[in-house]
Amino acid sequence: MQKVRVAGAGMTRFGKYPGRDLRDLAEEAVHNTVKDAGIDLKEIEAAYVGNSVAGLITGQETIRGQVVLRKAGILGIPIVNVENACASASTAFHLGWVSVASGLYDCVLALGVEKLSDPDKAKSLRAFNAAVDITELAEIEKQLGRGGEEAKDRSLFMDLYLSMLNPDEPASQEVVGGITREQMALVSVKNHYHGSLNPFAQYREEVTLEEVLQSRHVVGPLTVLMCSPLGDGAAAALIVSDEFARSKGLKGPRVDASVLVSGRGDNRSMAPAIRRAAAQAYEMAGIGPEDIDLAEVHDAVAPAEITIYEDLRFCAPGDGPKLIEDRVTWLGGKLPVNTSGGLLARGHPIGATGLGQIVEVVWQLQGKAGKRQVENCKAGLTQNGGGHIGFDLAAMAVHLFSA
Amino acid sequence: MQKVRVAGAGMTRFGKYPGRDLRDLAEEAVHNTVKDAGIDLKEIEAAYVGNSVAGLITGQETIRGQVVLRKAGILGIPIVNVENACASASTAFHLGWVSVASGLYDCVLALGVEKLSDPDKAKSLRAFNAAVDITELAEIEKQLGRGGEEAKDRSLFMDLYLSMLNPDEPASQEVVGGITREQMALVSVKNHYHGSLNPFAQYREEVTLEEVLQSRHVVGPLTVLMCSPLGDGAAAALIVSDEFARSKGLKGPRVDASVLVSGRGDNRSMAPAIRRAAAQAYEMAGIGPEDIDLAEVHDAVAPAEITIYEDLRFCAPGDGPKLIEDRVTWLGGKLPVNTSGGLLARGHPIGATGLGQIVEVVWQLQGKAGKRQVENCKAGLTQNGGGHIGFDLAAMAVHLFSA
Repeated sequence: MQKVRVAGAGMTRFGKYPGRDLRDLAEEAVHNTVKDAGIDLKEIEAAYVGNSVAGLITGQETIRGQVVLRKAGILGIPIVNVENACASASTAFHLGWVSVASGLYDCVLALGVEKLSDPDKAKSLRAFNAAVDITELAEIEKQLGRGGEEAKDRSLFMDLYLSMLNPDEPASQEVVGGITREQMALVSVKNHYHGSLNPFAQYREEVTLEEVLQSRHVVGPLTVLMCSPLGDGAAAALIVSDEFARSKGLKGPRVDASVLVSGRGDNRSMAPAIRRAAAQAYEMAGIGPEDIDLAEVHDAVAPAEITIYEDLRFCAPGDGPKLIEDRVTWLGGKLPVNTSGGLLARGHPIGATGLGQIVEVVWQLQGKAGKRQVENCKAGLTQNGGGHIGFDLAAMAVHLFSA
Repeated sequence: MQKVRVAGAGMTRFGKYPGRDLRDLAEEAVHNTVKDAGIDLKEIEAAYVGNSVAGLITGQETIRGQVVLRKAGILGIPIVNVENACASASTAFHLGWVSVASGLYDCVLALGVEKLSDPDKAKSLRAFNAAVDITELAEIEKQLGRGGEEAKDRSLFMDLYLSMLNPDEPASQEVVGGITREQMALVSVKNHYHGSLNPFAQYREEVTLEEVLQSRHVVGPLTVLMCSPLGDGAAAALIVSDEFARSKGLKGPRVDASVLVSGRGDNRSMAPAIRRAAAQAYEMAGIGPEDIDLAEVHDAVAPAEITIYEDLRFCAPGDGPKLIEDRVTWLGGKLPVNTSGGLLARGHPIGATGLGQIVEVVWQLQGKAGKRQVENCKAGLTQNGGGHIGFDLAAMAVHLFSA
C-alpha cells in the first residue's frame, strides 16, 4: 500500500447557521482546505462525502455530495456519498485513505457536512433518532425509562450514553461508571477552556466547575454543559500519496492507521468496539498509546471522555478520572485531549464531526493550532463513534497521524 | 494493487414485496451469495452497503447497513453505508473492490438493497425525486413541461431521460434522438424475452412488439412497457483477492476494471459521462469494446439502451438501432445485452440495481445462467448510472469482468 499524507485541512466554524445551507458550509470548508494545502481544485481525483441526516432534514436524500460539491466547483470526478451516523466523516476519510493507499488515486478529498439544527428542534431530535435501529426505538426508550413529557426535549443519546457507561445498574444522580459529577464537570471545564482558544469552536466561552454543575439539568447526573450541542458545519481534508506530496512540494502529517469497526450488538457498552478499533490501529501503525501526544475523542457526553481514556489505553482501567483531575489531558499536560474543544465545545454536527477531529490533529501536528498549540507533538489520534445497534455502537473509527 | 475476483454472487428476485422489509431482502441476498461462494460468513472482513431511499421511505436514514446485516448475522466488521442514487450498488461494489485491491482486506461483501415500492405510490415517486438537486426540482419540472395533473402519476425520470436523449429539440411522439418507436419497442421485447428466462426477474412474461406499442402511454413516445418499473430487492457479491481465492479453492471472474465518474453538470446528455467512464474502464483493463461478450446496461427507459450501445462503443455513433434490429444484442447474438431482463424486466430497485447487473454478469461468466446462458462468454461489462445534476448524470459506474 502507498504511504499516505494529509496535505491540507480546513473547516467552517461549527455552530448554528439558520441562514446557510449545506452547499455554503461545504464550499467554505473545501475552499479553506485547498488553500491550506496550496493546490488547485483540479488536482482532486475523487471525493468522499460524509453526511448523516440531510434526507430527513432537507429531503435531499440522495447525491448529497454532488449537490454540495458543484457549488464548490468540483464535478466530473468520482463522488461517493457516505453515511455512518456520527462517524460519517471518519468513514469518508477512511475510504479516501484506502483509495490513495491502494494506488488508485494520488489526491482525494474527504468532506463531512451537516445541518442538524432546525428551527423545529423536535425535527432535529427525530432525525438524530435514525442513528438507532428505528424498529427498536420504542423498546430502547422503554428500557431507558424515557416515558414522560420531560424526555421530549432532549436527545435520546444522552440517556443511551448514560446507560452504556453504566450497564450494570441504574444511573445514579452522582456517579456513573465510577465517575463522579465533579469529574464529569471537569471534562466540560477543560473542553470549554480549549474551545475558548479555538476560533472554529461553536462555544468559545470558558465555564467554571460551578457553572457546569449548576447549568440546566438534562438527565441523571448530566447538565446541559456536559452534553454536546446540536449544530451545523463542515470539515474537510486533502488526502495524498507520499509521492504526490513530494512531487508537488506539499507537506502534511502521515496517516499511520485508519481503522473502522462496528459493534457486535451483543453488549451494552461502547468499550469493546473502541478497544478493538484502538488495538487494530496501534498494531497497524506499529506504536502504542504511550507514543500518542494528543487526541481528539468522541465526548458526546462528558463522562464518556473519561472511559474513552481507558479504552484507548491512555491509562490503566479505572484510572481515567485521574487523568482529568491531574490535568494530564488538559492543554499543557502530558497528553492533551480535545484541544479543539471536543464535541462539547467545538460542537457536533454529526456528519462533519470526524473530520473536525482530524482537522484539529492535522493542524496541531503542523504547528498551526495558534493559542492552543501543543508543543513538540509528533503523533495524534482521533476516535469517532456513530450510531447504535441495540445498546452497542454501530460504527467506530480510530485514526493515527504523525508529523 | 492486488488482483481481485468475485467469488460469489446472489440476489432476491426483484419485485414488489409489501410484506417484506429491507432486512428480509438483504438476508436472502447475503445468504444466497455466501452459499454461491461456498464460504462461511465469518470470512467476511468488511461490508459496503448501497441503499438510496430508505431514509425517505422508512425513516431509517442512518446505519442502514448495520441494521440489515445484523439480521443476516454480520456485525463487528467495518460497515460502510453508501449512496449514489441508482448507482448506489455499483458504488458499493467499487468501494469493496478498492478495499481488496489495496491489500487492506482479502474478502469483503458488497450489498445493494432497496424497498422503493410503497402502498402510497406518490411517496415512492417523491423519494425517487431526491435523485436530482431538490432545489432545482421545480425548475427542472418547468423545463420539462411537467405542469399538469397527468404528470403526477409518473416518475420525473421518464421525462428527464427523454430530454437527455434528445437535447436539441422537443421530443416527438415518434422519434427520439434518431430512434424510432419501433426500435424502442424492440428493446422492450428483447429484455422481456430475456426476463422470461430469468427466475430472478420482476417480469417473466414475454411481450410482443404490438403489446409494447399499445401498452399504456406514459410520455412522448414511451409506453409503460418501455419504462423500468418501481420495485424492491437485494443483490450482493463477495469480492476477494486472487490469493484468498487460491488459498480457499474459490473460483470466480476477475474484476478487470472498476470505474466511477460523475457528470460535470454542464450538458444535457448522458453521453459524456458514459463515454468517459467506458474509456477509463477499457484502458484500465487493457481491452476494447470488441472484446466484450455480454453487457448489463442501464435501460431505465428503452431508447436509452440504444444510445448506451453507442456510448460504450459497441458500434459506431448512430448505428445503435441496427444492433437491436439485427438482433446482435439479443440472446444468441454476437453481444447479448441485458440477458437478465435489464431494468425493464429484471427490475430497478434503485439501490440494488448495480449489483443486480453484476450478479448476472458473474453468473454468465461462471456458466450459471441457466436458460439464458451466453455460450463461450469470457468478458462482461456492467454500466450503471445514478442521479442528476441539472440534466447531466450525477454518478456513472462501469465495471469489466472476465472468466
